[in-house]
Amino acid sequence: MRLVLLKYRRPPSIISLSRISVRYTSTGLKDKTMATVNKSAHPFDKGRLEALLSRRFFYAPAFEIYGGVAGLYDYGPSGSALQANIIAEWRKHFIVEESMLELDTTIMTPAPVFETSGHVARFADWMVKDVKTGDVIRADHLVKNVLEARLAGDKEARGQAAAPAKEDEKDKKKKKKTAKAAAVQLPDDVVKSYEVTLAQLDNYSGAELGQLCRKFNIRNPDTDNEVTEPQEFNLMFASSIGPTGQHPGYLRPETAQGHFLNFSRLLDYNNGRVPFASAQIGRSFRNEISPRAGLLRVREFTMAEIEHFVDPNIKSHPRFKEMRDVILVLLDRHVQSSGSTTLIKMSVGEAVEKGIIANETLAYFMARIYLFLLKIGINPDRLRFRQHMANEMAHYATDCWDAEIHNSTGWTECVGCADRAAYDLTVHSAKTGHPLVVREALSKPIVTEKEKHVETLDESALLKLKEELAKGPTTITVNGQAFEITPGLLRIERKTFKQSVREYTPNVIEPSFGLGRILYTLLEHTYWSRAQDVDRGVCSSCLSSVPELMISQVFVASKFRRAGIFSRVDDSNTSIGKRYARNDELGTPYGVTIDFACV
Amino acid sequence: MRLVLLKYRRPPSIISLSRISVRYTSTGLKDKTMATVNKSAHPFDKGRLEALLSRRFFYAPAFEIYGGVAGLYDYGPSGSALQANIIAEWRKHFIVEESMLELDTTIMTPAPVFETSGHVARFADWMVKDVKTGDVIRADHLVKNVLEARLAGDKEARGQAAAPAKEDEKDKKKKKKTAKAAAVQLPDDVVKSYEVTLAQLDNYSGAELGQLCRKFNIRNPDTDNEVTEPQEFNLMFASSIGPTGQHPGYLRPETAQGHFLNFSRLLDYNNGRVPFASAQIGRSFRNEISPRAGLLRVREFTMAEIEHFVDPNIKSHPRFKEMRDVILVLLDRHVQSSGSTTLIKMSVGEAVEKGIIANETLAYFMARIYLFLLKIGINPDRLRFRQHMANEMAHYATDCWDAEIHNSTGWTECVGCADRAAYDLTVHSAKTGHPLVVREALSKPIVTEKEKHVETLDESALLKLKEELAKGPTTITVNGQAFEITPGLLRIERKTFKQSVREYTPNVIEPSFGLGRILYTLLEHTYWSRAQDVDRGVCSSCLSSVPELMISQVFVASKFRRAGIFSRVDDSNTSIGKRYARNDELGTPYGVTIDFACV
Repeated sequence: MRLVLLKYRRPPSIISLSRISVRYTSTGLKDKTMATVNKSAHPFDKGRLEALLSRRFFYAPAFEIYGGVAGLYDYGPSGSALQANIIAEWRKHFIVEESMLELDTTIMTPAPVFETSGHVARFADWMVKDVKTGDVIRADHLVKNVLEARLAGDKEARGQAAAPAKEDEKDKKKKKKTAKAAAVQLPDDVVKSYEVTLAQLDNYSGAELGQLCRKFNIRNPDTDNEVTEPQEFNLMFASSIGPTGQHPGYLRPETAQGHFLNFSRLLDYNNGRVPFASAQIGRSFRNEISPRAGLLRVREFTMAEIEHFVDPNIKSHPRFKEMRDVILVLLDRHVQSSGSTTLIKMSVGEAVEKGIIANETLAYFMARIYLFLLKIGINPDRLRFRQHMANEMAHYATDCWDAEIHNSTGWTECVGCADRAAYDLTVHSAKTGHPLVVREALSKPIVTEKEKHVETLDESALLKLKEELAKGPTTITVNGQAFEITPGLLRIERKTFKQSVREYTPNVIEPSFGLGRILYTLLEHTYWSRAQDVDRGVCSSCLSSVPELMISQVFVASKFRRAGIFSRVDDSNTSIGKRYARNDELGTPYGVTIDFACV
Repeated sequence: MRLVLLKYRRPPSIISLSRISVRYTSTGLKDKTMATVNKSAHPFDKGRLEALLSRRFFYAPAFEIYGGVAGLYDYGPSGSALQANIIAEWRKHFIVEESMLELDTTIMTPAPVFETSGHVARFADWMVKDVKTGDVIRADHLVKNVLEARLAGDKEARGQAAAPAKEDEKDKKKKKKTAKAAAVQLPDDVVKSYEVTLAQLDNYSGAELGQLCRKFNIRNPDTDNEVTEPQEFNLMFASSIGPTGQHPGYLRPETAQGHFLNFSRLLDYNNGRVPFASAQIGRSFRNEISPRAGLLRVREFTMAEIEHFVDPNIKSHPRFKEMRDVILVLLDRHVQSSGSTTLIKMSVGEAVEKGIIANETLAYFMARIYLFLLKIGINPDRLRFRQHMANEMAHYATDCWDAEIHNSTGWTECVGCADRAAYDLTVHSAKTGHPLVVREALSKPIVTEKEKHVETLDESALLKLKEELAKGPTTITVNGQAFEITPGLLRIERKTFKQSVREYTPNVIEPSFGLGRILYTLLEHTYWSRAQDVDRGVCSSCLSSVPELMISQVFVASKFRRAGIFSRVDDSNTSIGKRYARNDELGTPYGVTIDFACV
């Protein structure tokens, strides 16, 4: 994508390609002459960024000419390139660095798999309907939006500025409506109860959300109508496999099950040993109730997931010492349960010692996630790790931390890092009868002595029988029938048993990345406007492309092609200034200008 | 994935890493000392290859522990790596080389899009049911399998070997059944009619397939029961978007519609000019009736598609001269319609001159496809381009050539190269009212003179009226009513019209790659067994990985990691010979052995 015709006033470095002279300069962040640029001359303006992203086709609503579909977006050339670069970096940072086993499993999944995993029963959100219009709204989002709007109105009435960080996932229409209805000062105790409710929002069940709607008189802000009791809506897209209609299937809502079902093959590939990790980058689907937050809440998305299989008794990590001193910003579950959102800064080493993070492996991956996000350009001051509360945790998890990235809609979960324990392998193994276990040769066999096993009698019964037989004939009862046996008929001996293999179901630590959310927050973190003109936005994400060069002559372009460098020629009829601005917006890192001057 | 402990008898090159000595040798195809290896010591054995691919987890049936689902496969570490390398090469060969605009569009698609594109009405196969068991069989596959089995039986009875190239997509069970039923010599005219039928098979409608079943007494070979009349079965997976159940959707069966719907944005991105091409690599879905051919016929697959948009009047290609002399093996539609399968060898230049290939752009891409397939390791002697016959062509295409790759099941379509003309852009534009056109500034405006337009009158009527008015008052009829008009009431003037913009709907040339089929045929083309032991198979696909090294010391492994080189340590407890064989099968190109000897 990316090329630019630069203005000559900047000091160009000159490269000479064949017979023509080429002025070769870098733009944007990479241009040293730009180091003094003031990037914070204008406050962040989401509308301007979104207009730029649409204009330059980073992404756009899918099926736009058909009116679009909520929660479905297409990536254009700029967005695809940025996504490809994030994926390439991810692959290097995780798969190569940790020698992970890459997988590519199917999206279409037969229903029994998700019945076993628990998704058919439990992978659902609560929705309410407007009692008059029938409009469908996600219950927790409704409570959140209405209470936040009232708190904002309260602050306005008290003459304080509303905290922008508290706003979440509202479209403009909604924002306007709720803001209008809420310029009212609230009693102090009501403010407090709203704040406590919001801090615990992810912890409520459907029935509790319904109670909150009645308690706080929460209505559909678009119509001011009451809403129904919350109902569950399963978030998986359903379909049917084959021509008979007898094989229901679902589109996977995560790639994880594909890892678990292949566990035996992966273990075999790894020569029977744990720990090891599998990794997969692929599409997943969630049929969201009413997505309205751009790339932050979509119905189809690219994930990158790691399943790290460990011995449940050994959750230490051999490379933890490399990460021990990485300092993270943490929001643990106890702080949240108390209704607070106070953050603490702590090294992962200390967090493990204090029991805040459950184990070394989980902490190791949290630190690795942190380093990855920094590497691609996320602002560390807008990054925190939030621990899931008990009710909020997915049905399979025993501990879970989300890497949340702050953006114009508030804090958004972008990476989950969960300890799924042995849940998935256990349920699939139980359902299919296929053992999903590690068999580990013990270097020192466990030796036990016991009486030889006879039919249905356990050791203590055998010992008793042995004792009685020593005295002479005795009677035993089998299946309700009594038999007399003599010492000659049955001999009970003490034997030594040697157990040289230990068999166990490994635990799973799962870092799971939503690439679209990371991509969008990255764009927010790297966007700025030129001081002299707020309309001249710059997307200075260094990742937006590999060095790409522009030239207008076909034979020079082919030289770049041969070198594997992607270039685009901009010989359009617009002014050089417009072409320059266009490439600022695209985040073009390098430009080449060709003129007829001899150098 | 890939590492190997090599036997020392081969001359190793030595690299020294830190304090330990490392013997560094290449294996397989890349090893010069292996140049004398006899790769054709054993005939190709599909069973052995499939066992190897399963054992080394190149790919495996998805949901295997749940009994599997026909047509769904998971790629393991080796298969994922091979696929990733094919994709990387594809990206370089097409996207970078031709400066294409990459896209990443959604799989989930609202129904109206595929209603417009014609897929809801026409993207279907014909299926028949066993009248007693209800088993579902694809009609054309049934005819093909039964007639081919009878021909094979005829050859057997005449004492000739059956032609393996004629076999297609039968599982072993079927092969056995049909072979058993068919060791009968047929009359010469029956043999001829079978052969003609098979050569035209792709040309038959559902009703014609039903007639063939009755004419040739074709029954379900598994049960010998009769089959029903063919019924259409739509191959798209259906689902529903959102919680209301009112928005039906389909999983895309191709990525193409995502390109077409974004045409205006892409054109804008390309500064309003054609030709240009968009490209997309992504998952597509086809709910095949009864897939039984491994990776060659699946329900979910990764495609790579290019949509090259051209001026319908200019289907020449600026870089055609670079490809003119590339010689392809062609099977054109006239040869097939005459019931023959005779191949011709011809340069694409000649094929365009003779009108065999419709235009330069189509021929350019066919040559580029050919070079790509050779580059990744496909055997050129097992590659042909077959033109679609009239009835066989997709509803949107005006000309289409398939790159077919020969493998153990016969000739398999792996790449389609179609001229979709203006079909898609025209129908979507008509449906949505959104113009999907190019507006081209004419360097020389087209100037025409005509009478000024007045309401519903055309130019000749205006000229007549003007003439009459020159004589005095006259009468005109508008909507059945007569009006008298006088010269002062209406003035008709001659004006000059200047048209400076030409507006047109571009045509689309579409190369479309099925990556799974390419991957599988590549594995067949590069697999061989060691002369001394047929069980020691080698997958010598050069693409199976980037150079990957193995070492047993952690600090050496970390050096490779830092260099971005994927390596796997094989310190398992098996013998060095087994480890060596394992890596032959995996196609490991480089191995490093560490021992305690000083060098």
